[in-house]
Amino acid sequence: MSAAPFQRPAPALLEALQEVSSAAASGALTRFGVPNHYCLGLRPLLPGRRLLGVAVTLRYVPTRPDLAERLRAATLPSLEAIEFLQPGDVLVVDALGRTDGGHLGDVMATRIQMKGAAGLVVDGAVRDFPFLQQMDLPVFARGVVGPPSPLLPVEYNVPIHCAGALVQPGDLILGDDDGVCVIPQAWAAEVARVAREAEELEVFLRQKLLEGRSIIGVYPPGEAIRREYEASRQRSSGG
Amino acid sequence: MSAAPFQRPAPALLEALQEVSSAAASGALTRFGVPNHYCLGLRPLLPGRRLLGVAVTLRYVPTRPDLAERLRAATLPSLEAIEFLQPGDVLVVDALGRTDGGHLGDVMATRIQMKGAAGLVVDGAVRDFPFLQQMDLPVFARGVVGPPSPLLPVEYNVPIHCAGALVQPGDLILGDDDGVCVIPQAWAAEVARVAREAEELEVFLRQKLLEGRSIIGVYPPGEAIRREYEASRQRSSGG
Amino acid sequence: MSAAPFQRPAPALLEALQEVSSAAASGALTRFGVPNHYCLGLRPLLPGRRLLGVAVTLRYVPTRPDLAERLRAATLPSLEAIEFLQPGDVLVVDALGRTDGGHLGDVMATRIQMKGAAGLVVDGAVRDFPFLQQMDLPVFARGVVGPPSPLLPVEYNVPIHCAGALVQPGDLILGDDDGVCVIPQAWAAEVARVAREAEELEVFLRQKLLEGRSIIGVYPPGEAIRREYEASRQRSSGG
Amino acid sequence: MSAAPFQRPAPALLEALQEVSSAAASGALTRFGVPNHYCLGLRPLLPGRRLLGVAVTLRYVPTRPDLAERLRAATLPSLEAIEFLQPGDVLVVDALGRTDGGHLGDVMATRIQMKGAAGLVVDGAVRDFPFLQQMDLPVFARGVVGPPSPLLPVEYNVPIHCAGALVQPGDLILGDDDGVCVIPQAWAAEVARVAREAEELEVFLRQKLLEGRSIIGVYPPGEAIRREYEASRQRSSGG
Amino acid sequence: MSAAPFQRPAPALLEALQEVSSAAASGALTRFGVPNHYCLGLRPLLPGRRLLGVAVTLRYVPTRPDLAERLRAATLPSLEAIEFLQPGDVLVVDALGRTDGGHLGDVMATRIQMKGAAGLVVDGAVRDFPFLQQMDLPVFARGVVGPPSPLLPVEYNVPIHCAGALVQPGDLILGDDDGVCVIPQAWAAEVARVAREAEELEVFLRQKLLEGRSIIGVYPPGEAIRREYEASRQRSSGG
Amino acid sequence: MSAAPFQRPAPALLEALQEVSSAAASGALTRFGVPNHYCLGLRPLLPGRRLLGVAVTLRYVPTRPDLAERLRAATLPSLEAIEFLQPGDVLVVDALGRTDGGHLGDVMATRIQMKGAAGLVVDGAVRDFPFLQQMDLPVFARGVVGPPSPLLPVEYNVPIHCAGALVQPGDLILGDDDGVCVIPQAWAAEVARVAREAEELEVFLRQKLLEGRSIIGVYPPGEAIRREYEASRQRSSGG
Repeated sequence: MSAAPFQRPAPALLEALQEVSSAAASGALTRFGVPNHYCLGLRPLLPGRRLLGVAVTLRYVPTRPDLAERLRAATLPSLEAIEFLQPGDVLVVDALGRTDGGHLGDVMATRIQMKGAAGLVVDGAVRDFPFLQQMDLPVFARGVVGPPSPLLPVEYNVPIHCAGALVQPGDLILGDDDGVCVIPQAWAAEVARVAREAEELEVFLRQKLLEGRSIIGVYPPGEAIRREYEASRQRSSGG
Repeated sequence: MSAAPFQRPAPALLEALQEVSSAAASGALTRFGVPNHYCLGLRPLLPGRRLLGVAVTLRYVPTRPDLAERLRAATLPSLEAIEFLQPGDVLVVDALGRTDGGHLGDVMATRIQMKGAAGLVVDGAVRDFPFLQQMDLPVFARGVVGPPSPLLPVEYNVPIHCAGALVQPGDLILGDDDGVCVIPQAWAAEVARVAREAEELEVFLRQKLLEGRSIIGVYPPGEAIRREYEASRQRSSGG
Repeated sequence: MSAAPFQRPAPALLEALQEVSSAAASGALTRFGVPNHYCLGLRPLLPGRRLLGVAVTLRYVPTRPDLAERLRAATLPSLEAIEFLQPGDVLVVDALGRTDGGHLGDVMATRIQMKGAAGLVVDGAVRDFPFLQQMDLPVFARGVVGPPSPLLPVEYNVPIHCAGALVQPGDLILGDDDGVCVIPQAWAAEVARVAREAEELEVFLRQKLLEGRSIIGVYPPGEAIRREYEASRQRSSGG
Repeated sequence: MSAAPFQRPAPALLEALQEVSSAAASGALTRFGVPNHYCLGLRPLLPGRRLLGVAVTLRYVPTRPDLAERLRAATLPSLEAIEFLQPGDVLVVDALGRTDGGHLGDVMATRIQMKGAAGLVVDGAVRDFPFLQQMDLPVFARGVVGPPSPLLPVEYNVPIHCAGALVQPGDLILGDDDGVCVIPQAWAAEVARVAREAEELEVFLRQKLLEGRSIIGVYPPGEAIRREYEASRQRSSGG
Repeated sequence: MSAAPFQRPAPALLEALQEVSSAAASGALTRFGVPNHYCLGLRPLLPGRRLLGVAVTLRYVPTRPDLAERLRAATLPSLEAIEFLQPGDVLVVDALGRTDGGHLGDVMATRIQMKGAAGLVVDGAVRDFPFLQQMDLPVFARGVVGPPSPLLPVEYNVPIHCAGALVQPGDLILGDDDGVCVIPQAWAAEVARVAREAEELEVFLRQKLLEGRSIIGVYPPGEAIRREYEASRQRSSGG
Repeated sequence: MSAAPFQRPAPALLEALQEVSSAAASGALTRFGVPNHYCLGLRPLLPGRRLLGVAVTLRYVPTRPDLAERLRAATLPSLEAIEFLQPGDVLVVDALGRTDGGHLGDVMATRIQMKGAAGLVVDGAVRDFPFLQQMDLPVFARGVVGPPSPLLPVEYNVPIHCAGALVQPGDLILGDDDGVCVIPQAWAAEVARVAREAEELEVFLRQKLLEGRSIIGVYPPGEAIRREYEASRQRSSGG
């Protein structure tokens, strides 16, 4: 139950994803054939906050007295994971999707924020929302609830399941009001490039629609509109 | 997979429903014995926006390469449905209730708005919410999510299932913060009349309660309070 | 189907819970081994409103013509329950978790408010949300929906199931943005004491974290930090 | 939490339903406009056993130490309900649909059988299935599971919710491999008559289909086939 | 709401799938990248019966008086679909997954069988199971239930959604105790070839395991075991 | 992702549980305050088979190309777990409860059986049921389905979540027609003792009921019946 080493991505990779939406990133990953890259059923507790950072993972299991005793004899994996966080990291928690208890609350969130973490993603509920909503920390979860967690943290920095997605330590986590996208490092540069191109194209297409064009031929874009777009790009970047 | 003709309702019918809430319309339809007239599980993405218009329907099925190829060889039914929209229409989409992909996004919403549509109702999720929330278009859906749709549009203007309701092309769609009510044209005039009467009566009953009356006899209204109400109406409309 | 007598708690008990969060109350009840004390799946319709009061319970069952006739021949249990309310009471409704109809609406809510009730908790949906959100009444429910209820009120002031919790008449109901906690009278004084102590301790622990401490040893609090806390309390309360 | 008196139906009423299937009974009740008369999600634990009897109802709620203590100080409502059973009765249990515990097991089933009960219907799970399957007692439930019930019996012979149906004490309970139908006494004679007529007609229609007829005109039966049927009935009953 | 023409597959195609299991067919389709080819949540009502045939599709929507009247004025699409069946066809029904009513029963099943259909697949429940289990017809459905269907048949031989799968008229339907696989004609020959090869290989691999081999290298099969397999095939077909 | 060492229980411990039902074991664990000890939603694929053995655990996560490549470069954890099995072991698999793919099939089951394993428990579906039902291996799972698994095996012999239960390597797994109970080694001897006592007592209580006693006082057993039972035990064991 120790932490496996992983390589944090180069800052330029995060930089490249700065303007990318979770929908565009997901569109790119879908095109690349990468499945299970989006958390389904999670929502931003504070709508409007964007999240971008590097995954540190944490896994919970149902509690039992003998396991609880063994875990508490050492340092709890949840605490180790939090102390492991570096500025810009995102703690991603497999809490089995359970919303009958809050798996993290105000105290843990305070330390997570002090570590400079970019945010918190929980496949389950969190608690102390009356307090959490006064903090700056972007939190994505299934919801909020009062009771303490019926689970125990058992491992950190292992591959986890989070709301339908696979999350590996070191993955890039991108959250906005559509939800949370998980971007493997190996695809991140391509995702950034393709997603930005797609968004740029969409701006152009929406502009055409706002000028009164029919959607037929415009979206999904046909060859003619693509040529128009290329021409427009050359004009705008050109002499 | 072509569009069946249908008669749009007279403007007066829409006018008559202008002040009616979805709850009052549903109350009237329930009284008339019309089942399956309310979308269950949909919410306004932008609370506070009212929706009233005429249904144009669109049906999705799970994707498959051979069907995708055949559909794309012609014009996609989703695009035909959007171009079919007239000012005041509502695009109502059977997306099988699926929230693992966004079945419409910013580009399609832009064209829907340009067509003068009254709004969009989706039994499933939409995507690009960070953009959609800046538009004026009332959207009712199960939620928002980043990934592209795993479905294909297969037919439009056929009777569809939408979140527990039947929707036929030409039905009147009435949405507010309680949700979305589907009003068949044949009942619409009666719905408008009965719903407005019920709301007027409820204003009176609430007034009596605000004056300190017991709810017993007042709601559901007994004969005595109904007589009081009739008397009050005659006074207010009278000489 | 009559009301059983129950003792309302002393005002001091409510007073003691005034500053307690539903999460802290749930934490205390969990420690005391009291299960089934939290409503799962309910949310505040008007976030930010706190609820604290004494439970009056109401139970619904699916409708049927013969039962409807019998119930309407007398006074409906829902109306009796509402008239039974005293200032500070909370009407807690077992509506079988159903969200395909709104079990209470604007008229009933108006009378509930006029009775001085502290709020309304419904395991199911309510209707007329466009109106309800203009009222002052704290309402916790599964959601909002337009159609009338497909259920009938059948009993009041009996023990009920509400969203996973047991609610008995006279229980204390504490709601905030985390949800709704049900506090049995017999445990209420202890809950207030333990929850306030826990919250006071957590303020101290968060302060330590804000000063840059590691979470290890601080939360869950080890012996050293507990001694620090005791020392700090004595200083602050001391002469 | 005492038993309300109710009138058991005349034996002739049960006799009349002896040959009726739960599907035919449900068809008749649907035609009469009686909703909520069928238990959804229950299955016969021992397929092939038919159940017909009179409902005695029992209601469970989530457990809590104070309620448990109060209930055990008197006689548990579950035991009172079982002792209340007369030969031919069916114990119908609202166990909140929960399958995380078995609400009745081998010991209670033994006494239920000794009382001459016609069977047991549980909206939830039962336990001790290795033993129960050796008994003669028809049991309909959501499933089987090992843990004891997390619920408490709180009332008997009150109207209950059972798997989507309303069950009142004295209702007729008819179970077969399709599931469990709840027949109110007031409709039972008409249900028996209409259901038997429908089944007789269906035998005739199936015979016509087995002779090679097209289903068009035969089912749903048109006027011509109905005349044929009448003629055939007169022939078979005639001189 | 008329039937689109489609080409039934050559008998040799069906012949080639005769020995293929639904699991092997699904394995092949997964390898070919064909998604949405398996019905999830359906089970054989009569375990042990195999189903193989050509899809005729039927689509239901929630009922409403005006639609019911219009449909009944002509011939119901369900009846047209049944009469359209040729020997070896399979009627595949999108009944919205609903199990609160039985969408087909004994009479319709009788005619389906008389038409020589290979079987029936329903995304929803069927009724009259006490009768259906005495018939020879393989039926795959979500379950059985007594009440009549709350839906209306609205179209046939259009692409439908069935339990997570896409079904187009003319698709090959292959059912066994694992469930129902939908094989598009365009892939059917390749599915048959690859699935039979895979099953043949698996027989060999299981034989090796029964001889005591470790599973490592054997499954998934490594190069060495594949060479062994090729050698064994040549031996058995050779000389 | 390697196997942690654990101590298999002494054979006498398994021996002591030989006659204990999963319901009785769960009853004992509930009394001891051990939560999360029963798998909810799993059923025996071959009813009537009993399972008793020692847990070897295996954990799956959603697939992704980079993880798949890394895992396949070494030996898959699923294969390592199977080869790790000793006679009498039970492979317990966290497959995230997913039934859209079969996580183990005929080939893996064959090797599991060859290793002398006592059985297989899967929180998810298995495939190749037409083959599996011809084997001797007791399998408990959520169901059967044809498609291959959409998951990857990622670790073995770590604590896992299985259908609501915690399973640690070395736990005792006891399955029968009620389902699967997870017995921690530390409690196993006490579970065996208490469960056998409870079952012996229940035999006595059922005998009393079969003699015509009222259930009141007999179950739950009062003091008088307990004294009778003690007397009866002394008689039967005595001179």
